[in-house]
Amino acid sequence: MLEDKNQERTSLADLGEFGLINHLTKHFKMYNSTTLKGVGDDAAVISKSEKEILVTTDLLVEGVHFDLSYMPLKHLGYKAVMVNLSDVYAMNGVAEQITVSIAVSNRFPLEALEELYAGIQLACDTYKVDLIGGDTTSSTKGMLISVTALGSAKKEDIVYRNGANATDLIVVSGDLGAAYLGLQVLEREKQVFQVNPENQPDLDSYTYLIERQLKPEARKDVPELLKEMEVKPTSMIDISDGLSSEIMHICTQSKVGCKIYEDKLPLDPQVISTSEEFNMDSTMIALSGGEDYELLFTVPIADFDKIKGNPNFSIIGHITEENEGMNLVTRANQEMELKAQGWNSFKG
Amino acid sequence: MLEDKNQERTSLADLGEFGLINHLTKHFKMYNSTTLKGVGDDAAVISKSEKEILVTTDLLVEGVHFDLSYMPLKHLGYKAVMVNLSDVYAMNGVAEQITVSIAVSNRFPLEALEELYAGIQLACDTYKVDLIGGDTTSSTKGMLISVTALGSAKKEDIVYRNGANATDLIVVSGDLGAAYLGLQVLEREKQVFQVNPENQPDLDSYTYLIERQLKPEARKDVPELLKEMEVKPTSMIDISDGLSSEIMHICTQSKVGCKIYEDKLPLDPQVISTSEEFNMDSTMIALSGGEDYELLFTVPIADFDKIKGNPNFSIIGHITEENEGMNLVTRANQEMELKAQGWNSFKG
Repeated sequence: MLEDKNQERTSLADLGEFGLINHLTKHFKMYNSTTLKGVGDDAAVISKSEKEILVTTDLLVEGVHFDLSYMPLKHLGYKAVMVNLSDVYAMNGVAEQITVSIAVSNRFPLEALEELYAGIQLACDTYKVDLIGGDTTSSTKGMLISVTALGSAKKEDIVYRNGANATDLIVVSGDLGAAYLGLQVLEREKQVFQVNPENQPDLDSYTYLIERQLKPEARKDVPELLKEMEVKPTSMIDISDGLSSEIMHICTQSKVGCKIYEDKLPLDPQVISTSEEFNMDSTMIALSGGEDYELLFTVPIADFDKIKGNPNFSIIGHITEENEGMNLVTRANQEMELKAQGWNSFKG
Repeated sequence: MLEDKNQERTSLADLGEFGLINHLTKHFKMYNSTTLKGVGDDAAVISKSEKEILVTTDLLVEGVHFDLSYMPLKHLGYKAVMVNLSDVYAMNGVAEQITVSIAVSNRFPLEALEELYAGIQLACDTYKVDLIGGDTTSSTKGMLISVTALGSAKKEDIVYRNGANATDLIVVSGDLGAAYLGLQVLEREKQVFQVNPENQPDLDSYTYLIERQLKPEARKDVPELLKEMEVKPTSMIDISDGLSSEIMHICTQSKVGCKIYEDKLPLDPQVISTSEEFNMDSTMIALSGGEDYELLFTVPIADFDKIKGNPNFSIIGHITEENEGMNLVTRANQEMELKAQGWNSFKG
């Protein structure tokens, strides 16, 4: 018997907005005692707290931020949450609640939204975050997801972008560039598939890259680790647009310069081999790739001993006086001015 | 000399995302001492508070929720904020912060976004609300606005949808149905214009209706008034989808029934005259029209004297036992079951 691909397609129009929200959110658990009232009233209610509240929001648009031809909906839901939690962790905070709003065209059946929400739920369960509200509506074209995340931190623990000082060490968690190369691999496979749909791709040598692109993890562990290590960064930011763009935000807001050392950039072996295969410069990819969702932070030089041997962290440079500018020191010991090649969604 | 309509069109691509956000938000003032950090870091920071935090979000999509052929962008920005503040007031709270995310296609120049943000800023200034963050990105088609509003209220002051009791009075602020009829008038004018662009519309007899559609005001004054009057509603909701749909939310969540009296529904004279002109039933419009952003609430019958003479409020019925159902009592004293004709964006 031939597969009936339409066997389980439920129209969104049949459910209506309230039925749909209820259907998609009824199995979500609440993890935080601060969540007094979640989905189901005019507004959610979060209890008063001894900590400050952190608020961040991000918008993901089909055809701009994601391509459903290789991004499974469950992964998309997961990633949409990660992108936002990452911003809370970048303030040295704990993420506690999210709202999720989606706009979808009629081409999406209920089952597609169930997949999307399965990914959102997995993210909530894994990161102990509560879905407390949102909006669900139709669009005239494609899918759009808007997530707002709320978190908390003690006032004295919050880390802004503007506190870096000359001589501070520049530290990054994890490794860089893999998510961007994962996207290049997926784009190439999509083009191969369009030419020859029978082709079976062998993606074994790109598994790490693809996972970093399709299922990024926000670094919830970093604020926890820093606390254990008794290190409070002087500035911190998450790497969504690429290292160059992010270190430039820190330098501009802190009114300082920086030196980044090319030979210190943490690269996974798959990043090195795949950069070569694509004839791309791995340093350029680490600097400008984006979507790594690692944390970039600065610490006083006195914390060097606490950071240096930790496998989660790489010291990649140091902060300088503002008039020294923002520079990359190459392997050949030449200084080049850093340029933000961060992604601009308005450029075609 | 012929007018050059393109004389002031600045491409969004030239500014980039960070330049754009900075350009659009730099003139916003901060009104609330709880706003510790607004736009410009990974997350905004709101100070800890003696009150609970209220959070609500709404998504407006071009072609679904608004039509730019008759909705000026400044009004759209204003309305996008109102829709969200209304939800905070419906919890009996005070709105304090908003985040605004927008996705726009390349057809919009910078000047269009400036108009949109002028409306957002006017709303912030008028309602003393702080813009604390957001996201700005491109879309493949049209414009989309996602707003999240935060507010606060003492725990004992918060009003949910689920507290209505049998014999409670049902009260509504302002009048009903005008925003919906305003939309009908604008849709008709659009069609006339398409047939004959030279036609000069005479909209004098619809000014109130059009204003209610294009520039709704959220009822910030109602929670303040209720406090002065020492009335705490047992339940409250804002009217975004039409009276029927909203009273049914209150009844379902409170496990009660209701009787609404047709002759008590507050209608502006323009609603009555224009309903006749459109051959529509004004009661039906009041029940199902939507977008009024008035507040619907229930109070104990003991508060009758406090409410009755107040020009801001109309007592339109009372809560009953659940088994009596949800009914409209017509002018002819007949009971009809209420039906939610609330808007379903997924129906074509």
